[in-house]
Amino acid sequence: MRDVCVVGLGLIGGSVLRAAAAAGRAVWGATASEEDAEVARGDGYAVTGLAEALDRAREQDALVVVAVPLPNVEDVLRAVPAGTRLTDVVSVKGPVRDLVARLAPAARYVGGHPMAGTSASGWAAGRSDLFRDAAWVVSAEDGTDVDVLTDVIGLALAAGAHVVPATADEHDAAVARISHLPHVLAAVLASVGADGGPLALALAAGSFTDGTRVAGSRPELVRAMCEGNRSALLAAVDDALGRLGAARGSLASTGGLAKTIEAGHRARLTLDEQQEAGGANLTVDLTSPQALAALRALGARGGRVVGLNGSTALARTS
Amino acid sequence: MRDVCVVGLGLIGGSVLRAAAAAGRAVWGATASEEDAEVARGDGYAVTGLAEALDRAREQDALVVVAVPLPNVEDVLRAVPAGTRLTDVVSVKGPVRDLVARLAPAARYVGGHPMAGTSASGWAAGRSDLFRDAAWVVSAEDGTDVDVLTDVIGLALAAGAHVVPATADEHDAAVARISHLPHVLAAVLASVGADGGPLALALAAGSFTDGTRVAGSRPELVRAMCEGNRSALLAAVDDALGRLGAARGSLASTGGLAKTIEAGHRARLTLDEQQEAGGANLTVDLTSPQALAALRALGARGGRVVGLNGSTALARTS
Repeated sequence: MRDVCVVGLGLIGGSVLRAAAAAGRAVWGATASEEDAEVARGDGYAVTGLAEALDRAREQDALVVVAVPLPNVEDVLRAVPAGTRLTDVVSVKGPVRDLVARLAPAARYVGGHPMAGTSASGWAAGRSDLFRDAAWVVSAEDGTDVDVLTDVIGLALAAGAHVVPATADEHDAAVARISHLPHVLAAVLASVGADGGPLALALAAGSFTDGTRVAGSRPELVRAMCEGNRSALLAAVDDALGRLGAARGSLASTGGLAKTIEAGHRARLTLDEQQEAGGANLTVDLTSPQALAALRALGARGGRVVGLNGSTALARTS
Repeated sequence: MRDVCVVGLGLIGGSVLRAAAAAGRAVWGATASEEDAEVARGDGYAVTGLAEALDRAREQDALVVVAVPLPNVEDVLRAVPAGTRLTDVVSVKGPVRDLVARLAPAARYVGGHPMAGTSASGWAAGRSDLFRDAAWVVSAEDGTDVDVLTDVIGLALAAGAHVVPATADEHDAAVARISHLPHVLAAVLASVGADGGPLALALAAGSFTDGTRVAGSRPELVRAMCEGNRSALLAAVDDALGRLGAARGSLASTGGLAKTIEAGHRARLTLDEQQEAGGANLTVDLTSPQALAALRALGARGGRVVGLNGSTALARTS
């Protein structure tokens, strides 16, 4: 089992460290937060400075997990030695891929994004089971280092997650639609509702409270997530503007909303059906020249890797 | 206690009938659905044809509750005798007010809208406690018949609801923002998500499932509700388009979403604070010439009537 070095011990990094330790891995970490470091040490984890942690990773040929916020990724990457097995857990993948290409081109990098979290933050909020049953997206570009890809898949599975393979751009486009746009629309809806004054808010029931729930998230976290995925989010917002504008036009001209409401209903049923579908088992031989293409095809169809047997990935279609 | 005649015995009407009976009122009903009539009779309720039910209401000086879908309201109104104490439970108030003015101008009409419901429909889905703790909007226009207004307040309170006074136009503008726009945005979001294909839907988590939940509602019900409130909904959609367009512009030009996200966050906190606020008690003397203005002011501030002592309304501010 590959040793794991986690850089950044907040909610996500701290949970990765705990999950890897719980799965029997040798683990250690580094954090710029003296507070997090102290509590983590008190919980029995080895926490050192960044250089020391990365040195040990090179000696042990460990997998290094970058778990700092996007604005701090640069500083970490500048310290990463050539040849390091490297992944990250940042919520956008294209920008991190580009930073790695510029600042740590000789690292053996495979991007990742475990899709779990709570509104809490910091080491104390972490849990070893944070990723249980969550999707952990792993980059599977052409040219990806399959040996490190296998390490990342192994770590994700050890944490109880399932692995969704995708390119960085596919990931960013998808999360713009199903995570970042929902936050923007929730903010817009909350503001339009509050514009209606106390009477409107007094009448708010389930459709409004559900539709605005994530507007209660910490604004700085939402901004960092959405702004970090700027170009993909712009495309998703344009799609929403086009659809909302079409609804407006139809309501104004004919009084009808059939197309909007029926398309939305079908889309929601598609989500429910995909989540409830049983799926079929298949395997992907990670040593095959077609492995990366096969993994990407699996992810594009809504499938996931659920196990690893040596160099064979056990997968389920949606 | 005023007798109650309910016309239309679906989910809402059937629940009003049951709730009034449970509160000790003499009740009877009429419905065009032979199926609903038969089951309601089997449950021990008096169900007749429309003319007979309205005749009995005139004889008993009962309160008639119109509980049919908006497209069927016209036919009922044409049959309502002059002088009838009349209310309704339709989800838009301006269009019903206008129909009454045209088709039953001599009825003593005060509009109402109990804000409760489930995705089910028909008599069998009704419950006597459907309105418990729900808001029941009651129209309080200048010139409203305060005697009938008191009847409607009494019925709503007997059903376990609290009463939110507002003009028909204030009601329609408010529900456009906190009920109808959320359905339109949920449909748009669901479609944009599904446009991302199976990969996007496989990554959908709480923000997307919450934001699209009501897109799972029956499209014909959502359309009837939204299309029936066309002009108020257009204003709410325009507000949303303006805010979403501003977010788009800011993201494209500066890369930032601070204004959108922070405004949405403040708005959502306002909702939470209003719902959690304790409020203060006050009374409104319904025989006073200022009663209607005082009730409207109460509703505009997010307050509600929670009790009735003779002709004194017991209220709470938000």
